Amino acid sequence: MSIDPSRLGPMANAIRALSMDAVQAANSGHPGMPMGMADVATVLYSQFLKFDPAAPKWSDRDRFVLSAGHGSMLAYSLLYLTGYASPTIEDIRKFRQIDSVCAGHPENFLIPGVECTTGPLGQGFAMAVGMALAERHLNATFGADLVDHRTWVIAGDGCLMEGINHEAVGLAGTLKLGHLNVLWDDNKITIDGDTALSTSEDILGRYAASGWHVTSCDGHDFADIARALGEAVADPRPSLVACRTVIGKGAPNKQGSHSVHGSPLGADEIAAARGVLGWTAAPFEVPAEILADWRGLGARGAAARAAWEQRAAASDKAAELARRMAGDLPAGEDAAQAFAAWLDGAQKVATRKASEMALEVLTPLVPEMVGGSADLTGSNNTKTKATGPLTAADYGGRYVYYGIREFGMAAAMNGMALHGGVIPYGGTFLVFADYCRNAIRLSALQHARVIYVLTHDSIGLGEDGPTHQPVEHVMSLRMIPNLNVFRPADLIETAEAWQLAVAAKHTPSALILTRQNLPQLRTAANSGGEMRSARGAYRLVAATAARRVVLLATGSEVELAVKVAAALEGRGIGADVVSMPCWELFDAQDAAYRADLLPADALKVSIEAGVTLGWQKYVGEGLTIGLDRFGASAPAEVLFDHFGFSVDKIVPQIVDRLN
Amino acid sequence: MSIDPSRLGPMANAIRALSMDAVQAANSGHPGMPMGMADVATVLYSQFLKFDPAAPKWSDRDRFVLSAGHGSMLAYSLLYLTGYASPTIEDIRKFRQIDSVCAGHPENFLIPGVECTTGPLGQGFAMAVGMALAERHLNATFGADLVDHRTWVIAGDGCLMEGINHEAVGLAGTLKLGHLNVLWDDNKITIDGDTALSTSEDILGRYAASGWHVTSCDGHDFADIARALGEAVADPRPSLVACRTVIGKGAPNKQGSHSVHGSPLGADEIAAARGVLGWTAAPFEVPAEILADWRGLGARGAAARAAWEQRAAASDKAAELARRMAGDLPAGEDAAQAFAAWLDGAQKVATRKASEMALEVLTPLVPEMVGGSADLTGSNNTKTKATGPLTAADYGGRYVYYGIREFGMAAAMNGMALHGGVIPYGGTFLVFADYCRNAIRLSALQHARVIYVLTHDSIGLGEDGPTHQPVEHVMSLRMIPNLNVFRPADLIETAEAWQLAVAAKHTPSALILTRQNLPQLRTAANSGGEMRSARGAYRLVAATAARRVVLLATGSEVELAVKVAAALEGRGIGADVVSMPCWELFDAQDAAYRADLLPADALKVSIEAGVTLGWQKYVGEGLTIGLDRFGASAPAEVLFDHFGFSVDKIVPQIVDRLN
Repeated sequence: MSIDPSRLGPMANAIRALSMDAVQAANSGHPGMPMGMADVATVLYSQFLKFDPAAPKWSDRDRFVLSAGHGSMLAYSLLYLTGYASPTIEDIRKFRQIDSVCAGHPENFLIPGVECTTGPLGQGFAMAVGMALAERHLNATFGADLVDHRTWVIAGDGCLMEGINHEAVGLAGTLKLGHLNVLWDDNKITIDGDTALSTSEDILGRYAASGWHVTSCDGHDFADIARALGEAVADPRPSLVACRTVIGKGAPNKQGSHSVHGSPLGADEIAAARGVLGWTAAPFEVPAEILADWRGLGARGAAARAAWEQRAAASDKAAELARRMAGDLPAGEDAAQAFAAWLDGAQKVATRKASEMALEVLTPLVPEMVGGSADLTGSNNTKTKATGPLTAADYGGRYVYYGIREFGMAAAMNGMALHGGVIPYGGTFLVFADYCRNAIRLSALQHARVIYVLTHDSIGLGEDGPTHQPVEHVMSLRMIPNLNVFRPADLIETAEAWQLAVAAKHTPSALILTRQNLPQLRTAANSGGEMRSARGAYRLVAATAARRVVLLATGSEVELAVKVAAALEGRGIGADVVSMPCWELFDAQDAAYRADLLPADALKVSIEAGVTLGWQKYVGEGLTIGLDRFGASAPAEVLFDHFGFSVDKIVPQIVDRLN
Repeated sequence: MSIDPSRLGPMANAIRALSMDAVQAANSGHPGMPMGMADVATVLYSQFLKFDPAAPKWSDRDRFVLSAGHGSMLAYSLLYLTGYASPTIEDIRKFRQIDSVCAGHPENFLIPGVECTTGPLGQGFAMAVGMALAERHLNATFGADLVDHRTWVIAGDGCLMEGINHEAVGLAGTLKLGHLNVLWDDNKITIDGDTALSTSEDILGRYAASGWHVTSCDGHDFADIARALGEAVADPRPSLVACRTVIGKGAPNKQGSHSVHGSPLGADEIAAARGVLGWTAAPFEVPAEILADWRGLGARGAAARAAWEQRAAASDKAAELARRMAGDLPAGEDAAQAFAAWLDGAQKVATRKASEMALEVLTPLVPEMVGGSADLTGSNNTKTKATGPLTAADYGGRYVYYGIREFGMAAAMNGMALHGGVIPYGGTFLVFADYCRNAIRLSALQHARVIYVLTHDSIGLGEDGPTHQPVEHVMSLRMIPNLNVFRPADLIETAEAWQLAVAAKHTPSALILTRQNLPQLRTAANSGGEMRSARGAYRLVAATAARRVVLLATGSEVELAVKVAAALEGRGIGADVVSMPCWELFDAQDAAYRADLLPADALKVSIEAGVTLGWQKYVGEGLTIGLDRFGASAPAEVLFDHFGFSVDKIVPQIVDRLN
């Protein structure tokens, strides 16, 4: 630490000034948090954080997660001040405008130095747990010479009050992620007012109960902050540091109140704050000496990186680490061959079982795959022989027992994918995709290759009844941009879905799988040597008689569609069957391909055991066979018949429409 | 307590026997929990629970919530044994079959004695918090003579590990809900195996940190159970009782292991268990003496209820309580008149503000409305003058500061609605509907009148950017059966939405509201004295020139549709504008009404600032103008233009299609 402690105050004030100015110029934003946490952040960056602004993607950097993402000006200030290429001061001047990378909340896809997209409260923290887990896993795999860094989080009261925090804290405590250090902005203020309005929790007590190290500091006393952060580093447990701060610190008339949380200070209060802070530079200008201090601090990271580069150059593992960090699959990956062999079979298995079979092939070939389940391992079929338990005692394992924590699992997987070096997949029941839906959304928004294994995908779940039977879920997931939703119809489509999901470097995937057995519908004969799911939809059966009907189906209903087509053919009505395992991939095909599958001159009929809303996109004025109500508790085969999913009930509807 | 303690063992074994038999007959289900918690439940029902099987809906009964809903046979056994009319032993014999009320998980809409639908883990517990809150509120409003009961919960490890538990525990602790007592089935087993696989938490420590009373007992020692439950009743704080149990207790070879959690025991193990338990009766038969003990216990509740009836007869508040509990609105409710007066105006307000204006009218008229927000009170505009804070110091208040706990809030509202006597509404940003989506689903499944106030409903949110801009949310909510999704276009439609939501006794509603101001589109002239939103969609503007186009829009895009129609008319192209605030209500209209709005001979064009998937239902082969990607950070008006929501960008697309 080469910075004169007396220089820290002005350095912190530079964060305050930039934050005030940017929010004021944008006429929207959150000045309170950056001003309140400026001192803590200054200590973190000057004495603890390992980073090199010249190499924002250096794999052994510490990860810094601003979980309280609304305080984005704190992150942008730090990146600019320490000398990252992005954002520029021009970007900061255009904070929250369409042509600036300085969005209202930090977006990982806009600025390389932003580790993850935050704002939805609690998720930054939970993603940090995943980053810390990925770090320990890679450390165990590649050694401390190549992987040995920390994950630092700044979190607010909201991050700690959200339910997901309990899941993240429990996971980190159980896995003893000692390289995770959370700096809690303990300002006693939420949007609605004093925290006492809605909580009376002893937060340190709760964290201690989950095996965390806890300590506190005066968040405006540089020495005390450094003492607390030092303790956090020294302790082998994950750490929570309560930083007692004044929200909006420096704004003399508004600080300490919720009015400073999410609105510009206004010209008068900014003027007053400048007086208090002794800040005389023009808006968006940082005095040369202060900027030099910050830049000097940023430049120091080059040494650590150079040392790492040297170690990497000497290591025989560095190339493999680099491959994994780049997100490229192993060169020798030949799962396709294994899967092609299955085409000759006639295996009747549930697609959740087919998924396990595919994983048994893939996981030995792709060592960066790290699996898990939210306490449904035996039901989601997510564990393979190659993936031993990843535990506090063995971070080298590849299977995480996430516990009954769907949201925490999903967010952790986002963090793992964003950390890089691993491809996470995790399972739960499809109906509980609801529990982690916003994390699935953040996978998509962040371009994170996370694979969701969502089993028990319809009334085919059977006796557990409507609480556990997804009805609206498949279609609802299709609504999320940049998410590939696969609902495979058999063993082969499941294997193809896995290959496509693992290869989709910037897109998360959801694999929607059955509980019940399904016959194998694809063979070498009807596959034509092609990985047909790659086109999202394809003609599984071509009409024999003159085509009047095209049946569109996914998953378990493709089998039914094949039977319906046969029955129609028996009446002399030609019917194609189109399997549509992935709408998103189908929509990306050219118009000719799409038109060939969905000809204008045929009656199009969709069959899917879920809500029909959405299918009109493909069937137009045709028929939609589905389930626009909640399910019921009974054996699966009873339910399918009860709700009209049978040849006898569907064929007459089609014949009626044709007449 | 008049039951000989030596009789409790056989009584508990009746629960075990029925549970084993029913799961075995169904060949699916969860015997482990009912067998493990049979002793605790027997003590609860015999010594603590206030209930009268002859009056399952008696308003002052204790509420019993089986949060670990997979153990449904525990609930069914207790209801049958204590003498409720439903379920019958025939229902239990047909456990998990289509013609039985004994579904895989307990469903409140199938059995009057089931307080709420459980199974999605953590939510039963969180609903119980809402029930306990409703009880205290009604106690403060009507006095202890009429309202003075407890809420009892049986919860498993899953309920405690889920994130929502943190929110529920925090809310109950802050609100000091001392009438809430949770019996935790502390069996150290989850589906994946020993709880140590995924958690190392000191659970009692965590609860104590949130202001709960905590105690433990041997869950198989009747006296110790009674001691602990007595402590819970005596303590003024909410209580957690850790009941140390053996899962599947009584099954000699499987008890204590996760193999007994979710599968039938099998004939051999059942035979062995019968030996251990000394149970010789035929399957589904309960020896007369044991059944008599249970029935005698059930009959005792009549006295408490008679005493209550007497107090009610003497009270001048009983009629009002009865009205509220019946879910009927006040007779004098005349909000419509107040709202009608607004038709003469031309008020330009955000619909979130319009919602506040409507609430200022409604909340004084409907005293059972209890509002709140997940820490966005000033943004959701949910607080009114009539709704003072509901706090531990004043349960008579009508506004809950739920804190940053969306899922906990939604589940609590479900519990409040199911308790009866209150109509809960609560706000968050629409994008965070994701955080509580499964609770919204449970509102719908349970027929609970819960009103979700979901503001900041599109890119109109502006600068906060894509994490906070809903894109897929409105359509995704429309996918949930039995949920009315309102996206009003102006002040008038907002007021109508509120009236319809409050009147929908068995259906939850989601009100989707803007951050930004919208002009008033409806006047007395174009309303025809009708509450037009009641039909779900209506023709706001009729074409002047020959109609070639019908524009369909909702919310903030109706204003744009009106402008587009004017521009089309300017080119001699006749265009209707149809406002569609509530698809569900529109779909319930007769075919003639629907066909009149959606004529086959016009080009139909939808305009909505969200995903287009789904709109094909109404526009057929027409045009869908929407946003099939994530948003961006910028001022709202910039974003609407950037993403194509302008007259200049839409009109040419329509003209192109017409040509």
